[in-house]
Amino acid sequence: MQAKRMGRQSCRLPSRPRVQAFASTAGKKEGEGPLRETFDVVVKDDTLGEKSWEKAEKRMLADTVTLCLNKAGVREEDVDLFLGGDLLNQIVSASFAARGLQIPFLGLYGACSTMAESLLLGAALLDGGFGSRAVCATCSHFSTAERQYRFPLELGNQRPPSAQWTVTGAGATLLTAKPDFPIAVESFTVGRVVDFGQTDENNMGAAMAPAAADTLLAHLKDSGRPLEYYDRIVTGDLGQVGYALMRELCEKEGLALGDRYTDCGCDIFSPEQGLLAGGSGCGCSAVTLNGHLLRMMEKGQIRRLLFMATGALLSPTTTLQGESIPGIAHAVSLEVV
Amino acid sequence: MQAKRMGRQSCRLPSRPRVQAFASTAGKKEGEGPLRETFDVVVKDDTLGEKSWEKAEKRMLADTVTLCLNKAGVREEDVDLFLGGDLLNQIVSASFAARGLQIPFLGLYGACSTMAESLLLGAALLDGGFGSRAVCATCSHFSTAERQYRFPLELGNQRPPSAQWTVTGAGATLLTAKPDFPIAVESFTVGRVVDFGQTDENNMGAAMAPAAADTLLAHLKDSGRPLEYYDRIVTGDLGQVGYALMRELCEKEGLALGDRYTDCGCDIFSPEQGLLAGGSGCGCSAVTLNGHLLRMMEKGQIRRLLFMATGALLSPTTTLQGESIPGIAHAVSLEVV
Repeated sequence: MQAKRMGRQSCRLPSRPRVQAFASTAGKKEGEGPLRETFDVVVKDDTLGEKSWEKAEKRMLADTVTLCLNKAGVREEDVDLFLGGDLLNQIVSASFAARGLQIPFLGLYGACSTMAESLLLGAALLDGGFGSRAVCATCSHFSTAERQYRFPLELGNQRPPSAQWTVTGAGATLLTAKPDFPIAVESFTVGRVVDFGQTDENNMGAAMAPAAADTLLAHLKDSGRPLEYYDRIVTGDLGQVGYALMRELCEKEGLALGDRYTDCGCDIFSPEQGLLAGGSGCGCSAVTLNGHLLRMMEKGQIRRLLFMATGALLSPTTTLQGESIPGIAHAVSLEVV
Repeated sequence: MQAKRMGRQSCRLPSRPRVQAFASTAGKKEGEGPLRETFDVVVKDDTLGEKSWEKAEKRMLADTVTLCLNKAGVREEDVDLFLGGDLLNQIVSASFAARGLQIPFLGLYGACSTMAESLLLGAALLDGGFGSRAVCATCSHFSTAERQYRFPLELGNQRPPSAQWTVTGAGATLLTAKPDFPIAVESFTVGRVVDFGQTDENNMGAAMAPAAADTLLAHLKDSGRPLEYYDRIVTGDLGQVGYALMRELCEKEGLALGDRYTDCGCDIFSPEQGLLAGGSGCGCSAVTLNGHLLRMMEKGQIRRLLFMATGALLSPTTTLQGESIPGIAHAVSLEVV
């Protein structure tokens, strides 16, 4: 069994759990961006007809999980585990979505790294024989995140160029132990919490980039793979500032990331949309993976993907108490088999 | 591998990961209660000399994990995973503790069910071959929880008799894949989110009891075991109101829980301490397990324990928006082997 360990932070998954289905729901603004054709659903109204943004976010997550199961033709009672979380205090979007779904639930909090955390835990539990199917999902909503983390929406305050825009969106991946599907979860790397002392809460990208570089280096070291092993290496939501810093940090370690490296936060909006440094939030990497990236894998345009969702582990309270912003990144290796 | 599945929600752990060490730190009030002799550390000052309650909580968790590793004579670099979470927004106590520890970190949120969630995931990952050692830990602090969930501490407002007192404390369990220790994690049951429509945030016990009953029934059904299989069945923090309701709900299903059923929330304080319905918080079941209960197992006074930590998955926002309080309970079966 210990043969699954590749090194300090990484494990392979010999049974290679498969992606049976995936689904994504995106907000209005995200649906006007470059990835619009890759989402299953683009909502016309970010309230989804609900009375509060929070209720809308919960509904978006629950609907996306249901859509994912429907795409696979799988019933709730045939899914053994729901692994998920979100950005809201006490991860209420995920918990309330789980209330309706009646799938045994494991709540996670990894800030914007949740999509990778849920995938790696789901895949590990299936590989370990603890279930046949697991659904891994997360979401975020601009309006709930903004008013929880920053300012009342009504304030309409200015934002510095390093600020990112929280993506309204939800993504779900259904994993199965049955080897009947072409995309497999091959290995993963669990991140460490890394903190370079960044204290500007309007520059999350810079706070998360060191964690992303740390996890990428750990993954390559543990697996003994060159960078070129992967067709694509993707971070979750570093945005323009963090993306440049990630390249710089890797270059210092002798790794030229080149064209194969992209960031969901940079790709989800176009510069014309005027959203400063790009997208962020759990939903950013979740909708990009469960739309754009997995579709590219289905078409064989990407055969080996290293998906690294990145999270900034701050709270408004820690910022007020003068703490710096710790980051984390988890990596999941997906392969067409 | 599928032989690990016992039923819809439960799995056995054939390798039976062992408890290598455990540690607990309790607050001043907890140190004056009936379990005082069972804690490793009782702090004299709930600030731990820090400038804020939040910094004190983080420090308490980090120190307890370190103490746990020291008791085992294990270095941080020999631990493959740290699984933990807490009640604070964005689980900052656990994330900031993980920053100092440099063990690969998986953040969890299960409200007060976190001790059981971390144990079941840690044990499953070791059983699955994804590591040799995992440390599972959680904490809570009366002063951080009170001001986050309820009112400013300075207000000193009255509390109804059904209210519980958030425990100041942290607990950590070090699990190992080596079968050289007497206490084993034998099986687990992942909870579903259950909501009976309870809306009184001063009566969390009543909100969580239906989830505890649901998980106990699922565990017994999945495992095919009679209640008598266990020497002790323990819930996390139902308190007096939830404890009575749990008995009633089980009785309706034909299960007379009898003397073997206890609740950490009822046991941690004495009635003379005047803390109304009892203790609550992630720390309540964490310090009781990693003090009183595991010591009883070490002495052979309990040979089979079903540990069910219970969580109320609300947030102040959901309460303000008129939502009821969903609950969850995860069960972990521990045995002296």
